[in-house]
Amino acid sequence: MGEKQEPAVLDAVRDWRRERAAEIVAGFAELVRLENVTGDVPALRCNADEIVARLRARGAEVEAVGPDGIAPLVVGRVPARPGAPRLGLYAHYDGQPVTPADWSTPPFEPTLIGPDGARLPFPGAGEEVDDEWRLHGRAAADDKAPIAALLVALDALTAAGAEREVELLLCLEGEEESGSPHLDELMTAYADRLQAPVWLVCDGPVQPGNAPQVVLGVRGFTDLELTVYGPARELHSGHYGNWAPNPALALARLLASMKDADGRVTIDGFTADTRPPDAAEQAALDALPPVEAGLLDRFGLAAAEVPGSRLADRLMLPSLNVRGLRAADVGTAARNVIPAYATASIDIRLAAGDDPKALTDRVREHVRAQGYLVLDREPTAAERREHQVARIDARVGYPAARAGADLPVVAHLLDLTARAAGRPAITLPTLGGSVPLQHFGQALGAPAVILPIANPDNNQHAADENLRLGNLWYGIDLFALLLTERPAA
Amino acid sequence: MGEKQEPAVLDAVRDWRRERAAEIVAGFAELVRLENVTGDVPALRCNADEIVARLRARGAEVEAVGPDGIAPLVVGRVPARPGAPRLGLYAHYDGQPVTPADWSTPPFEPTLIGPDGARLPFPGAGEEVDDEWRLHGRAAADDKAPIAALLVALDALTAAGAEREVELLLCLEGEEESGSPHLDELMTAYADRLQAPVWLVCDGPVQPGNAPQVVLGVRGFTDLELTVYGPARELHSGHYGNWAPNPALALARLLASMKDADGRVTIDGFTADTRPPDAAEQAALDALPPVEAGLLDRFGLAAAEVPGSRLADRLMLPSLNVRGLRAADVGTAARNVIPAYATASIDIRLAAGDDPKALTDRVREHVRAQGYLVLDREPTAAERREHQVARIDARVGYPAARAGADLPVVAHLLDLTARAAGRPAITLPTLGGSVPLQHFGQALGAPAVILPIANPDNNQHAADENLRLGNLWYGIDLFALLLTERPAA
Repeated sequence: MGEKQEPAVLDAVRDWRRERAAEIVAGFAELVRLENVTGDVPALRCNADEIVARLRARGAEVEAVGPDGIAPLVVGRVPARPGAPRLGLYAHYDGQPVTPADWSTPPFEPTLIGPDGARLPFPGAGEEVDDEWRLHGRAAADDKAPIAALLVALDALTAAGAEREVELLLCLEGEEESGSPHLDELMTAYADRLQAPVWLVCDGPVQPGNAPQVVLGVRGFTDLELTVYGPARELHSGHYGNWAPNPALALARLLASMKDADGRVTIDGFTADTRPPDAAEQAALDALPPVEAGLLDRFGLAAAEVPGSRLADRLMLPSLNVRGLRAADVGTAARNVIPAYATASIDIRLAAGDDPKALTDRVREHVRAQGYLVLDREPTAAERREHQVARIDARVGYPAARAGADLPVVAHLLDLTARAAGRPAITLPTLGGSVPLQHFGQALGAPAVILPIANPDNNQHAADENLRLGNLWYGIDLFALLLTERPAA
Repeated sequence: MGEKQEPAVLDAVRDWRRERAAEIVAGFAELVRLENVTGDVPALRCNADEIVARLRARGAEVEAVGPDGIAPLVVGRVPARPGAPRLGLYAHYDGQPVTPADWSTPPFEPTLIGPDGARLPFPGAGEEVDDEWRLHGRAAADDKAPIAALLVALDALTAAGAEREVELLLCLEGEEESGSPHLDELMTAYADRLQAPVWLVCDGPVQPGNAPQVVLGVRGFTDLELTVYGPARELHSGHYGNWAPNPALALARLLASMKDADGRVTIDGFTADTRPPDAAEQAALDALPPVEAGLLDRFGLAAAEVPGSRLADRLMLPSLNVRGLRAADVGTAARNVIPAYATASIDIRLAAGDDPKALTDRVREHVRAQGYLVLDREPTAAERREHQVARIDARVGYPAARAGADLPVVAHLLDLTARAAGRPAITLPTLGGSVPLQHFGQALGAPAVILPIANPDNNQHAADENLRLGNLWYGIDLFALLLTERPAA
């Protein structure tokens, strides 16, 4: 029955959303306007309340749960025909921190931008909307896009008179960009409302080139701050430069010792536990379309870190990324000093097999092997007088996760995504990004696969984050299919 | 006559300033309260106006000169008995930029701090003042201390009824911390008012341990900003980390390539022009008391950059100092990105013989030899796509300067400083710091020697800059002697 009915549903959904495109964009913009920097609990509660209200208005039974003092988890269900099969849907409503000075438009003032970079007025009711326009604002892509798409899909199905054939369980998180510190705990506490045979994690971007994709795994994540100490206070670089040790230079030397000119991490044992791709994964990797030339051009790069390397191959290895450096000041604020300390902020992405604690320990061991006393706190005056001191503040993150390519839902999703996008879908063995996929297995005993919505050039985590409207339409159509078409049992 | 009269003058000056210590400290604090961040021309004009007013009130004939739009030069004279010999006195009234968050007390709210670190109320008239108290505030030491000391010395001599036997020519600069961009030009324009046989440059600190000193030379100075470019915008470290090149790591590798683990600058030709110390300089170096153990203890360091090296020996070589690092963010603001660029701010101190342009060129050549296209502007998109790009913004600074140890004024100053301090004075071949000593030779054809006032632990250029009050008394006594005792012809 599904086979016959559903093209009509999809057509009806498409007609409906085309006619109401201006209102849909306006409703999405209102959601993005809500400030949602991760860790800002009062602001995040407002987001959760708004999402709950919008979902309830569309017939969902949802609730914002969790203790005071943290961003709540929105849990619940979108009911369907009695006896309907279930799928779980995860997304997150918190966003990365913002540095407004780096943005072309204020991060929480959603702005429509045309393909030529010009700001556009929001269209009036009934006016045409171009697929290539983008809505700029923090979390427009990462990760309010699927939430907005689901809301519209529910409206469109109601307008089309289509019954829901799949019951969606919802799990919308507010702490993802902080590393999901309470997700396990909350999922465990509310496990009775979250019993689905598989979870669809709607986060991250689709393929470069906007090809739809189903992703079987993610890289794990862990991070640390590495601080090297120099003199107890900044010293005049004239009076003491060349005599007092410079922590900025010492930090540079330490970082340079961690990765060689060939892009290989030189920390002892860094890839010792990494599982190489199996045959099926290698086949999926080999089937991926080449994207590297386009990325180099788009990012203004002369070459990859390892010239000629393929992006997907590099994602199968753990990464060591210097995400920030800080010592004293540069530019007009620079002072002629030997800095008192220098800090590098480092994030590590884990491949299958890697253990987050083990990798952090290996970084610590490496720093120790360079002659440092490694602490996890401020050194005492006595320690500084006795040793070259480094401080490593590490959070132990989470491992990579990988679902089997043989899950029945994978073929179902490849089919739906291809029809929603009107082009073949791609299977990716792992996403570069890290989403807390392992929580589903740990807390709920269910596998998870990733079903991304956002355009690949969404500037996720950076300034000028944006969602291409064509990808919002894709998400709406995909959710309409998901809700009306039963997966194979 | 001077020989007989002057001990009485010094005693009278000391008695007078002890009785009025509270008022002297209050007057000094009012001078430090005036904001004077280098480059802030309106604020610096207020400083110049106040200094001119205070000097005129004490019989000096001074004027703030120079074009609009820059901090003026205060030039003029403190008249003396007809036919009196002349000496020139240079100081500067601008200060380094401030980062208030790093200060224990606001940088322009002068605060008295006791030896135990406690804040003290300003004493009332007639109350005792301890030599070990310090006045905290930007420029308290560098370089309003000698200006304040001169003003008090003039009052004290007037109160003592002592006639001035030496005519002081004054040259007080407002752009020293910006690299003295107009000093040559202004000195040349006002050369007729600045004809002294020798200039005393009152800047920098006395010896570690507070021993009085006369300094024959300074290190030169030049600086540059080195920026390494990565992707055209920050990239998500998950999606592209391990594939896209990371400019923070590339910068670390570049910096690490510039100096080896033995503290030797490895840039080709960096010390090629450096003149080694001559026999007289080496003798002065050898006569210096050891200060290293005390400095290591005070700065909380386990070892010097070159373990066991002597500070004075290291100052005879050009230095390469990483004074700041910046890439994206660290700490709570850190984002999981591959930064778009990374910057190191570098200052270079020159030894005798080094040429500032040549040293800058050698740094540029070194970066080029590591495979970079080196520009002095933002790269174009095409340049980024073709090359690994670095940007070097260099100011060409000034060379080191060195006066002959046989100048008659040197022996005179060693005598006066020893008597003002009550302990033997030290001859230093070069100061570690850079003061624009070469301008006196270039613009006025006169040698210059440095006569510092400030305590060595004054936190010059950094947070919590301070002047030890005992050093203010030293400056007052020294200027009283300078003004009343004729140098040998």
